[in-house]
Amino acid sequence: MSTPHTPSSSSPRPRAWEKLDTRHSAHMILFRPRWDRLRHPRSGEEFERLVLETPDWVNVVALTTDKKLVCVHQYRFGTSSVTLEIPGGVLDKGEHHAEAAKRELQEETGYTSARWTYLGAVEPNPAFHDNLCHHWLAEDCKLTHAQGLDPGEDIEIEAVDLADVHLRIARGEMRHSLVISALSRVLDLRPR
Amino acid sequence: MSTPHTPSSSSPRPRAWEKLDTRHSAHMILFRPRWDRLRHPRSGEEFERLVLETPDWVNVVALTTDKKLVCVHQYRFGTSSVTLEIPGGVLDKGEHHAEAAKRELQEETGYTSARWTYLGAVEPNPAFHDNLCHHWLAEDCKLTHAQGLDPGEDIEIEAVDLADVHLRIARGEMRHSLVISALSRVLDLRPR
Repeated sequence: MSTPHTPSSSSPRPRAWEKLDTRHSAHMILFRPRWDRLRHPRSGEEFERLVLETPDWVNVVALTTDKKLVCVHQYRFGTSSVTLEIPGGVLDKGEHHAEAAKRELQEETGYTSARWTYLGAVEPNPAFHDNLCHHWLAEDCKLTHAQGLDPGEDIEIEAVDLADVHLRIARGEMRHSLVISALSRVLDLRPR
Repeated sequence: MSTPHTPSSSSPRPRAWEKLDTRHSAHMILFRPRWDRLRHPRSGEEFERLVLETPDWVNVVALTTDKKLVCVHQYRFGTSSVTLEIPGGVLDKGEHHAEAAKRELQEETGYTSARWTYLGAVEPNPAFHDNLCHHWLAEDCKLTHAQGLDPGEDIEIEAVDLADVHLRIARGEMRHSLVISALSRVLDLRPR
């Protein structure tokens, strides 16, 4: 066993790494891969690291007038499974995330709202994504439209009792990290 | 405006899409890209979709005997910024996530614990990742070792007062979605 050192010691906060080179690979629809050559600020050693350049995302905690959470079931290609999530998606080019939140809620579910509150943003994965996911709260949501799905989408809606959300998370039925992150700003998600 | 439809109506839950073809691209270190050709179960139309085959991840909510949260500062290549996170990383080949949690905590911070509790798993992003991120709680953590960093790492430790974690999240200093997801199983993260 080696000697313990003191945390938050004399060593300064990690510094930025010098970028020596950068090159793009073929676009991958959801993101554009970029390879950066970087210099470690302490050792001077060079490393190659992958960045997936990714547009910002948005998702919506949508509550109906009778306090239900508007959820979507859809087949997800990464996990090859039908998931239970809250509505969300990718910002269109030039679109503000507030507009994207309204658009995604309406397109995926047909619900609309006049009461919107920004819940802040998270980094989906700062290790290799350069984007943010913005969380929005929509209250007093009403079903006013038909779904407006893309040809590549197949989404079914479920309005989940707010009291059952914990249960759906505990059972592992709802387990998209960005969904949990958004819900944690509105609900106490600690297991009971 | 089109006619609203009833949610959770007669239409069945979205079905799995038939996989027509699959092929891999060059390995990208963190993941192996795979292109699947899929048939939409309702329209019959074919689509090509990207999957990033990714090993499981793990992260650790590590609390010291004096109720501080063991955090790490490190330069992240995706966001080109120094982040504040909880310890975590990628499972080694064949490694169980319980072992990976202990290993990552000790390597990144030098802290160890005898009190481990599994907090469950989330899907980092089911749209294109096929992996899970396992959350672990380590209590009564003590600084017993020196850090054991890889040449490509530069990590500084900070023990954050548990009462200040909300503040660090509210200020946007701590905003990795998988960190928020893990913390939401231990703390009520709703803004005060």
